[in-house]
Amino acid sequence: MLAVTFQEPGRVAVEERPEPELQAPDDAIVRVEASGICGSDLHIYHGRVQIEPGFTIGHEFVGTVEAVGDAVTSVGEGDRVLGTFHTACGTCFFCRKGLFQKCDDARVYGHGATLGNLQGSQAEQVLVPHANLSLRRVPDGVSDPAALFAGDVMGTGYHAVVAAGIRPGDSVAVVGLGPVGLCATIAAKIAGASHVIAVDPVEERGRTAERLGAVYAADDPRSAVKSLTEGRGVDIAVDAVGHPDALDTAIRLARKGGTVSVVGVYAERQQVHMGLVWIKNLTLLSGHANVIAHLDPVLALMQSGQIDITPLVSREVPLTDASDAYAAYAEHSALKIVLRP
Amino acid sequence: MLAVTFQEPGRVAVEERPEPELQAPDDAIVRVEASGICGSDLHIYHGRVQIEPGFTIGHEFVGTVEAVGDAVTSVGEGDRVLGTFHTACGTCFFCRKGLFQKCDDARVYGHGATLGNLQGSQAEQVLVPHANLSLRRVPDGVSDPAALFAGDVMGTGYHAVVAAGIRPGDSVAVVGLGPVGLCATIAAKIAGASHVIAVDPVEERGRTAERLGAVYAADDPRSAVKSLTEGRGVDIAVDAVGHPDALDTAIRLARKGGTVSVVGVYAERQQVHMGLVWIKNLTLLSGHANVIAHLDPVLALMQSGQIDITPLVSREVPLTDASDAYAAYAEHSALKIVLRP
Amino acid sequence: MLAVTFQEPGRVAVEERPEPELQAPDDAIVRVEASGICGSDLHIYHGRVQIEPGFTIGHEFVGTVEAVGDAVTSVGEGDRVLGTFHTACGTCFFCRKGLFQKCDDARVYGHGATLGNLQGSQAEQVLVPHANLSLRRVPDGVSDPAALFAGDVMGTGYHAVVAAGIRPGDSVAVVGLGPVGLCATIAAKIAGASHVIAVDPVEERGRTAERLGAVYAADDPRSAVKSLTEGRGVDIAVDAVGHPDALDTAIRLARKGGTVSVVGVYAERQQVHMGLVWIKNLTLLSGHANVIAHLDPVLALMQSGQIDITPLVSREVPLTDASDAYAAYAEHSALKIVLRP
Amino acid sequence: MLAVTFQEPGRVAVEERPEPELQAPDDAIVRVEASGICGSDLHIYHGRVQIEPGFTIGHEFVGTVEAVGDAVTSVGEGDRVLGTFHTACGTCFFCRKGLFQKCDDARVYGHGATLGNLQGSQAEQVLVPHANLSLRRVPDGVSDPAALFAGDVMGTGYHAVVAAGIRPGDSVAVVGLGPVGLCATIAAKIAGASHVIAVDPVEERGRTAERLGAVYAADDPRSAVKSLTEGRGVDIAVDAVGHPDALDTAIRLARKGGTVSVVGVYAERQQVHMGLVWIKNLTLLSGHANVIAHLDPVLALMQSGQIDITPLVSREVPLTDASDAYAAYAEHSALKIVLRP
Repeated sequence: MLAVTFQEPGRVAVEERPEPELQAPDDAIVRVEASGICGSDLHIYHGRVQIEPGFTIGHEFVGTVEAVGDAVTSVGEGDRVLGTFHTACGTCFFCRKGLFQKCDDARVYGHGATLGNLQGSQAEQVLVPHANLSLRRVPDGVSDPAALFAGDVMGTGYHAVVAAGIRPGDSVAVVGLGPVGLCATIAAKIAGASHVIAVDPVEERGRTAERLGAVYAADDPRSAVKSLTEGRGVDIAVDAVGHPDALDTAIRLARKGGTVSVVGVYAERQQVHMGLVWIKNLTLLSGHANVIAHLDPVLALMQSGQIDITPLVSREVPLTDASDAYAAYAEHSALKIVLRP
Repeated sequence: MLAVTFQEPGRVAVEERPEPELQAPDDAIVRVEASGICGSDLHIYHGRVQIEPGFTIGHEFVGTVEAVGDAVTSVGEGDRVLGTFHTACGTCFFCRKGLFQKCDDARVYGHGATLGNLQGSQAEQVLVPHANLSLRRVPDGVSDPAALFAGDVMGTGYHAVVAAGIRPGDSVAVVGLGPVGLCATIAAKIAGASHVIAVDPVEERGRTAERLGAVYAADDPRSAVKSLTEGRGVDIAVDAVGHPDALDTAIRLARKGGTVSVVGVYAERQQVHMGLVWIKNLTLLSGHANVIAHLDPVLALMQSGQIDITPLVSREVPLTDASDAYAAYAEHSALKIVLRP
Repeated sequence: MLAVTFQEPGRVAVEERPEPELQAPDDAIVRVEASGICGSDLHIYHGRVQIEPGFTIGHEFVGTVEAVGDAVTSVGEGDRVLGTFHTACGTCFFCRKGLFQKCDDARVYGHGATLGNLQGSQAEQVLVPHANLSLRRVPDGVSDPAALFAGDVMGTGYHAVVAAGIRPGDSVAVVGLGPVGLCATIAAKIAGASHVIAVDPVEERGRTAERLGAVYAADDPRSAVKSLTEGRGVDIAVDAVGHPDALDTAIRLARKGGTVSVVGVYAERQQVHMGLVWIKNLTLLSGHANVIAHLDPVLALMQSGQIDITPLVSREVPLTDASDAYAAYAEHSALKIVLRP
Repeated sequence: MLAVTFQEPGRVAVEERPEPELQAPDDAIVRVEASGICGSDLHIYHGRVQIEPGFTIGHEFVGTVEAVGDAVTSVGEGDRVLGTFHTACGTCFFCRKGLFQKCDDARVYGHGATLGNLQGSQAEQVLVPHANLSLRRVPDGVSDPAALFAGDVMGTGYHAVVAAGIRPGDSVAVVGLGPVGLCATIAAKIAGASHVIAVDPVEERGRTAERLGAVYAADDPRSAVKSLTEGRGVDIAVDAVGHPDALDTAIRLARKGGTVSVVGVYAERQQVHMGLVWIKNLTLLSGHANVIAHLDPVLALMQSGQIDITPLVSREVPLTDASDAYAAYAEHSALKIVLRP
């Protein structure tokens, strides 16, 4: 089958790879009909996240079940399904606590040996471990691109504000308006945020956030936040970047006793203004989103039409054009590209 | 000053009453500019809730601060303010836990000796104990009727779903579409409910709920709920009536592990299907809404335009027409009548 | 193999039954080494809960894994394991929310067709569906009787107070001092309750509760509670009986804004003083305990020695003496009897 | 009256200061009978926290009410009372959320102009603003030193684990075994921690923690934690130091999805291993403890005898010996010194 594989920094290839085979009784194989290119793929593309050359990449997909093991009961052959960016077992210590993203057997698609050695979804077929929990039927009326978002970026945007305990009437700041930040904006509006202040140096992204209901604070987010919150700061500040400057901004925008929700990725030691964190009594949440836990509400909101990710999908291209698509995505000329095998 | 007083079941009067005087250092006196008639007033009007003849009724108000005691710092003379249906001290065991509605010194306006012996707000002036906590400045752009709702009915609708822990994507059923049920509908939609199923035998109320975004289930709410929730039942079922049939319906509409939020008033022993409550592992919340705690978000959502109570206000009449207004309200010919002193 | 089967009200038998066989890939078969007789078994024994004659009863067990299906990975042949009173799949809507006791595929051992048609554990062998979630290895140092309690009665006692949100310093009342009430007493003390007021007409049970750290309120629980809580009532009141009188007592003992935790079993409509529930703003929790979720902390506390259920185990008898054991248990002459196949 | 005042780094003095006078209607004046020296006082003593020379220090006290303003109702002249380290109004945005330590009018005793310009309690008398919330009657049977701890260090230890959401059976690591760390150890044990791993280079402190029920991990806390938590790490790790090394240790000891509770004081930017925080999905809580919210349970646990701070009190000395007491405390020769005016 054809698959998009990492070759070296700045280069991916579409090449023949062996078709996956069922290995465990709760495995499934899905014929991929659409797979998204995500910001995380770009980390691999640029070599910032290192994986083995020849490894198939991609972790967002929708498709049709082609085969299932004996122990798979929640989906069957021929079902239209979506995947989440990682798999989980449903029975370990962490799954029992509902922390599916920290499952002891969690594996992230397309991220090489260090994150579970699971071939990616930018291919004609993908192997899905623990399919009972890791696959979900696509509800009627949910499009392929929407389904892709549900299991990854939109699930992360939902996590950014809901795991932070948002309540209707709260104010939210979103720092960084890539796809995750825009999905956090969508989620915050749906959750009843009275104000969403969107922060990003790129004006076009800010205008997209405005269309989603946010106030775009181009120059001076602190003033914007103050004027909308009686000088207090926001209840929830989202760092959707993963850079110390974004974290610093989020810390400054949060009110006393507020929450800083870090969905941007960090990999190293950083300077953090712990003095501010301390004197403001902030709560800092961090890490991968629990997208498996969020699938039910996210899909319900997509089906009801309340979540509409159409503004975030730039274009669809054949899988065979993956090299060009990656090059285009790397130039930030697109919010989301969907590959069609 | 003029005040609306209870006389006997079915009769109120507008009569001269002595002006209130400051009694404690944290008292305030407010010149009332608008006061609502509420379903609770109707319980008094009909004699189902018994209060002393001659007692001034009413517990929703907006107006201007006329005088404050030495210890009042949060508002000052001339401020436009709103009240909540009850007062709270801010410092007792229950207030320290944030349960302001159960304050050891809580007093409900216009409900006679049993609920704190505090004269009501359907008058030209009203005495406000513990004014630092019990009064709030009306934000710019919030109308008098909206401010009335904030401190009572809308605060209760917000409580009905937010105290029940609603999360975006949850499904909600609202049983009973009087003002409280309609405000619960508004709150559920703002909080991101994927579906609000509205239940009431009166079609006109159902149509109002539809305009607020609900699905009106006229005949067969269980089927409506099942078809919208994959057969499971709703995450949150609100009893906004206070009658065992409504509670029974709410219990039946809730999913396993769901929450039944009882904001309808109960005063006696009732038959409750504890077998269903038990086998479904329901959580049942009950009692007065914590409107003081909810004022900040409710007012923020009114100011941002997300909460719009205009559809719920039937008409405004002079305070001197209170007798006719009560008679009209008792015939259910109006959702909310605002009295103007 | 030998198994204890229900025959007719008041009569069980020990008879030959076919050995269980693996049916699904995630099934396991356990050779039972100890199985408890529980209050729920008594409901069956007396015919209050109706099951098919000849059905094997019992739902508490510890033993050794004898066989596992292909998909079982969390335990293996020869492991010493314990079971929980019900099984759960780990992947359905309810399991994904962590509500394992409401799993769409939940089956209760030994309760006949209505609760999942799963043969009971008072037998030489027991079939365990969804073994990855429904079995757990017994930690070193945890005895057979302790392991039995972990998956049923002690898990329920833990649930009674922890699901109710107990915090150190809270006051707790436990109404009904059978094994569940005594386990709730143990859990409340471990959780840092400042006072546990134990209520039961049987003095011997009250004395046992005292030995576990409770204050036994033989005659006048309301006075006892008032004097220990500055007149307020307890933060959490547990109904460990399942009778309207117990529920009424629990409602009366709880403080304003408190929680009534109903772990006693209800099957029908009952009179409930909703007026009190409402005016006190109570939260009522109800239903089966989530013992699968609680196994990790309960076993940790057994291993550390903080939970010691020794005072609750009356005696151990051979499985073949089950008829006499049931007769003795029915006379309330024992708190817990352990059957040894 | 006599008061302990800061003079210059390394020097305090006992000098005559004017007696406080009531300024606001909700002020009270307390005749101090005992006041503690705390680690925070040492920051002032060493000049790390800068306050005005001549400012009275100290923020822990117990005494007798000598005078109250018109609006003080919760305590009266002659009452034996305790104070908390800061005051709060009970009515502002933050107090309405129960975040008393972030009250817009919060003032910390004895910390100079930057923290509210409120003279300290190491004096014969102290002025108490917002006395209805900021003072509490001492329950019968609670000693002076215990009462001192309730409003400051023990309230902070309670906060460290309870605000982190501890549940019975959780494992806890406490990094730093000064008075706050030891109080966190006490609180964790009362809350039902299955294991408390105590970390500090000073063996004597470790031995004190052992006597309080902890496992002292002198050399290799990571190994100790792993062996007690099946290799996972602790549910809650407390940084009771306020130094990046302690924070780093806490981050490393926490399990995936765990909580790092930072009660140690930070004032500046620090290196934080955000990569670990992110990949482990940690929640980081930080800031002043909410001692006013915790007073009810802490005092209840002191009265019941479950909290016993006796092991932490080194000695009592006359207020006039404050200079020597500070010198001794600065040499870490004492855990807690109580000054007696």
